[in-house]
Amino acid sequence: MAASLRLRGAACGLWYWRRGQRPAAASLAAVCSRSMASKTPVGFIGLGNMGNPMAKNLMKHGYPLIIYDVFPDACKEFQDAGEQVVSSPEDVAEKADRIITVLPTSINAIEAYSGANGILKKVKKGSLLIDSSTIDPAVSKELAKEAEKMGAVFMDAPVSGGVGAARSGNLTFMVGGVEDEFAAAQQLLGCMGSNVVYCGAVGTGQAAKICNNMLLAISMIGTAETMNLGIRLGLDPKLLAKILNMSSGRCWSSDSYNPVPGVMDGVPSANNYQGGFGTTLMAKDLGLAQDSATSTKSPILLGSQAHQIYRMMCAKGYSQKDFSSVFQFLREEETF
Amino acid sequence: MAASLRLRGAACGLWYWRRGQRPAAASLAAVCSRSMASKTPVGFIGLGNMGNPMAKNLMKHGYPLIIYDVFPDACKEFQDAGEQVVSSPEDVAEKADRIITVLPTSINAIEAYSGANGILKKVKKGSLLIDSSTIDPAVSKELAKEAEKMGAVFMDAPVSGGVGAARSGNLTFMVGGVEDEFAAAQQLLGCMGSNVVYCGAVGTGQAAKICNNMLLAISMIGTAETMNLGIRLGLDPKLLAKILNMSSGRCWSSDSYNPVPGVMDGVPSANNYQGGFGTTLMAKDLGLAQDSATSTKSPILLGSQAHQIYRMMCAKGYSQKDFSSVFQFLREEETF
Amino acid sequence: MAASLRLRGAACGLWYWRRGQRPAAASLAAVCSRSMASKTPVGFIGLGNMGNPMAKNLMKHGYPLIIYDVFPDACKEFQDAGEQVVSSPEDVAEKADRIITVLPTSINAIEAYSGANGILKKVKKGSLLIDSSTIDPAVSKELAKEAEKMGAVFMDAPVSGGVGAARSGNLTFMVGGVEDEFAAAQQLLGCMGSNVVYCGAVGTGQAAKICNNMLLAISMIGTAETMNLGIRLGLDPKLLAKILNMSSGRCWSSDSYNPVPGVMDGVPSANNYQGGFGTTLMAKDLGLAQDSATSTKSPILLGSQAHQIYRMMCAKGYSQKDFSSVFQFLREEETF
Amino acid sequence: MAASLRLRGAACGLWYWRRGQRPAAASLAAVCSRSMASKTPVGFIGLGNMGNPMAKNLMKHGYPLIIYDVFPDACKEFQDAGEQVVSSPEDVAEKADRIITVLPTSINAIEAYSGANGILKKVKKGSLLIDSSTIDPAVSKELAKEAEKMGAVFMDAPVSGGVGAARSGNLTFMVGGVEDEFAAAQQLLGCMGSNVVYCGAVGTGQAAKICNNMLLAISMIGTAETMNLGIRLGLDPKLLAKILNMSSGRCWSSDSYNPVPGVMDGVPSANNYQGGFGTTLMAKDLGLAQDSATSTKSPILLGSQAHQIYRMMCAKGYSQKDFSSVFQFLREEETF
Repeated sequence: MAASLRLRGAACGLWYWRRGQRPAAASLAAVCSRSMASKTPVGFIGLGNMGNPMAKNLMKHGYPLIIYDVFPDACKEFQDAGEQVVSSPEDVAEKADRIITVLPTSINAIEAYSGANGILKKVKKGSLLIDSSTIDPAVSKELAKEAEKMGAVFMDAPVSGGVGAARSGNLTFMVGGVEDEFAAAQQLLGCMGSNVVYCGAVGTGQAAKICNNMLLAISMIGTAETMNLGIRLGLDPKLLAKILNMSSGRCWSSDSYNPVPGVMDGVPSANNYQGGFGTTLMAKDLGLAQDSATSTKSPILLGSQAHQIYRMMCAKGYSQKDFSSVFQFLREEETF
Repeated sequence: MAASLRLRGAACGLWYWRRGQRPAAASLAAVCSRSMASKTPVGFIGLGNMGNPMAKNLMKHGYPLIIYDVFPDACKEFQDAGEQVVSSPEDVAEKADRIITVLPTSINAIEAYSGANGILKKVKKGSLLIDSSTIDPAVSKELAKEAEKMGAVFMDAPVSGGVGAARSGNLTFMVGGVEDEFAAAQQLLGCMGSNVVYCGAVGTGQAAKICNNMLLAISMIGTAETMNLGIRLGLDPKLLAKILNMSSGRCWSSDSYNPVPGVMDGVPSANNYQGGFGTTLMAKDLGLAQDSATSTKSPILLGSQAHQIYRMMCAKGYSQKDFSSVFQFLREEETF
Repeated sequence: MAASLRLRGAACGLWYWRRGQRPAAASLAAVCSRSMASKTPVGFIGLGNMGNPMAKNLMKHGYPLIIYDVFPDACKEFQDAGEQVVSSPEDVAEKADRIITVLPTSINAIEAYSGANGILKKVKKGSLLIDSSTIDPAVSKELAKEAEKMGAVFMDAPVSGGVGAARSGNLTFMVGGVEDEFAAAQQLLGCMGSNVVYCGAVGTGQAAKICNNMLLAISMIGTAETMNLGIRLGLDPKLLAKILNMSSGRCWSSDSYNPVPGVMDGVPSANNYQGGFGTTLMAKDLGLAQDSATSTKSPILLGSQAHQIYRMMCAKGYSQKDFSSVFQFLREEETF
Repeated sequence: MAASLRLRGAACGLWYWRRGQRPAAASLAAVCSRSMASKTPVGFIGLGNMGNPMAKNLMKHGYPLIIYDVFPDACKEFQDAGEQVVSSPEDVAEKADRIITVLPTSINAIEAYSGANGILKKVKKGSLLIDSSTIDPAVSKELAKEAEKMGAVFMDAPVSGGVGAARSGNLTFMVGGVEDEFAAAQQLLGCMGSNVVYCGAVGTGQAAKICNNMLLAISMIGTAETMNLGIRLGLDPKLLAKILNMSSGRCWSSDSYNPVPGVMDGVPSANNYQGGFGTTLMAKDLGLAQDSATSTKSPILLGSQAHQIYRMMCAKGYSQKDFSSVFQFLREEETF
């Protein structure tokens, strides 16, 4: 049970909520059912690993979709399911006044919104544009400005939870944007996630996700270094973990996601670092943290180092393993 | 209440125990009372800030003491209280077969045990030697070997908890040494601390303390960098802390000892970083971690960096502030 | 003499050329005189600390200028000197088919070229656009693409040498772009600098400058750490520098720009770190190196650290001092 | 020629002397021949890879030897050659008043001098004790104190130059100790090396070697990161090296020992990183630098990182390769 909870933690790599700790929010089920009556179509751009199950959850809640993806194949199953598929972001903007985008990088997001056939070319006044991509907060702010010029509202709402949580509708959304529009965004996001947290002005959703993942990376590497040092100094791994977790060294990486095989069940380290949150994804998020720190002139001495370490790991064959495999990376013994 | 708990956490800088989490151990009260009947004298060497209150707690439990300190003044109040003061470690060894040492550095410990007038010059066969100094585990092992040659037993039992916990008898002892002797050590240590944890072979007590403090330093700096970055990205500090603490970035430094003024009460950051665990003490412990990592060839990329950062802080006027002041250190704005 | 040479090294902060080491190049004087005959107007955008003296050197060589700067005052003295001042980058593009831009950041460069009234709005086919700003190589490549669409040629040619070299016409230009156009660029750049180095495709000029400055920052910090450690270990600074410079530790920072006061004459460390290459400028260039490394997934473990160290220094009052003041930053003694 | 010179540079890994740059010193040949007349026996302890050829060079200069090594086999060929072999360091001290020790670690040196059968047990008043091991300067100082108590003189004289230079008598000695005794030390060391540099008080010989190697490690890693970044940004490696070497990024690692295959001949990078100065040896020296920095509270932010990087490399299969293989270590591409 605790293990499965943890495994969900593992699946999402980032977020888990202790019972009773969820931020206060209107009953989302209620919100959704309340709005079951009149459902106008919702635009959805980006049907990849994450977007696909997210879109399906919107359908389950009765929302007709206007679909677009650069890869037509990605749209096929939605077309078969009777949803309307169009041929560009601007076409989506013509047919829907609520649009959700789920894209891999800042570049893709810029293209989808400001490109030659981008959303902003034909967006309707008063439209609600929700970007659930994980991108540079500075880009989110820029897009919000452009949207405002067109009389539309842009919000950043990066998700946490990975494919598993996307399928089960248990994603967490960190939302940044005009507070007055949060309820409207929550109505849609609540159909795809179990937690929708309002973080403040546009860009703060991205900021919150980036900050959490940077601290996560630092404490995970720190836990791996500490466990490795303790073991070499003769401590039993389980006993050391127990001592740390009763003490001031305690962190999520030590008590809920320990990177040392044999210390915990139901986490990637118990399964040869399969599943969980991949090293390349962590390296990508740390790249965003680095960019944000550089542009805001914020010193991140350990954050930069963590970024470089995960970068090295990607080049050393760890890219597809869970990010807790940094223990294995550090562990390798000198051969004499 | 929680605050005061935290403040004790603060006072000790290192250790706190959640209710019901204490490692299983014979009722210490029982142990102590059981042995009230026949109390043979206990040697005590090192009556500094920590040693002084520790020795007094032994007295409270009815143990006569044989006292020595390099500074005669440190012995005076014990002499006035009727305890026996002698003029060298070897004299202590002549008069007591259970000796506790509480010294500032590895050098002092080596001198007290192996010096010209050291304990080992006249230690009795079967004596129990407990060193509660925080020193290099390699030195503890060396002293244990030398003691064994003399037919005595040496255990390392570094304390955590600072002066406050020393006075209240709430110290934590991490004990390394022959397991058969643990009960005997526990009988004495239980009179000075509320937690006595057996860690394994000699040196592992030091190892456990060093490991916890290294991870603590890393996660504290990481928390400070993360909070600072988030604030510069527009997040409210309290909201960011709440999000981190519900998520995978959670650590003791973020949820129990947050370094950002205004986020928590009852911690040093709420009191201009007064009290708590001083930056120089953290720098010293990180130096020991560094030495242990170097001698065991254990890579500590973030641990080394943390060591250097606290070293820099000591040179920038933060030496007497609590180690969470690293937030303030990073926070300083560029003047243009 | 050697000192003054060094001082020029200091003034430029980056580049110096040992006698007889200049890269082979057509005699620039010759080139310039050869083209004295027919001089068509040259556009010049950005008349700041660097642009101002650079533009004047072009005038000295007989080139009529078409001037624009966002700050009208910056244009006044050129207007008084009879040069033509216009009111936007696009106006410059209408009147000149060779344009030089010298701007502070990537944002400014993007605005000047791709903005609403940017150069590319009215650039003539076949125009030669030379950007001497120091910006992200990725931006240079992007601008080159856009220019090509308009039938124009864009080259990046960041300068090294600071205001002193700009005045004396001793700048170094690192040029990236189509090789066929290098001679044309060289004709103009040779009037402002004593070294014009062709680095390869567009963006490589920026890359070369960024790479040199990253290695410079690393070796300067390394030299400062090493000299400080050696001094604390009892070595005489001058003797240590002499030993390093005869040995494999030798680098430009140790033998031509030593950061320890008293070791060398004619360098900023001999003058309370005044003049030279400011810490903020180094921090800015390291930010560009970091961005390039992140986008190309190149691990820069020491480069990232150097970036963070200069970032910290800017927040600790060193921003206006020469970057060799890192020795002073590390030097500060612990107060006990 | 230059190449072979460099290769010697490679062999020594550390030191090379540009023609005419050798520190002024009495003609060593002269010194040696002058003393050919009356040669009293010289004690020699430690006949390993380095000690063996060093001892032979002393023999060539006509010095009778008193030999000891913990491994009797190591003494055999000297015994066959008619030299006197004894059974402990103290026996050497009884028979010779000039003793040279060449040992692998601080522990071995302490044992040889202060051990149960150590030199200091029977050292004659006025004896000259020269330790050519590379060890912690703090240990050298300690041994010097103990020697002084016995009326003997201890000097630290770590060598640089590796086995090749040891055989050819081209070692460099960095000497620390009482200046009055330098000439006497020089007489012996000059028979084994071509450079004997006086560095100051005892311990400074070790300090000089450690400092040079730390800066070497930092600039080598910096060069590797820079070349790798430049290549990924599209620069030609040879052109980039040329630009750096004409500029402020220039260092021994870039201009005399470039780590990128194809840029230079006659260096390890041109020979699959064979030969040269092994990564484990660099890691060992960085460990000593780290220890010295920790004990003197000297911040070495990049030095610590360099230590950790070489430590990691040892665990990743680079231990036997030349230390310039850090380029290869960083170079590995991400597999997607």
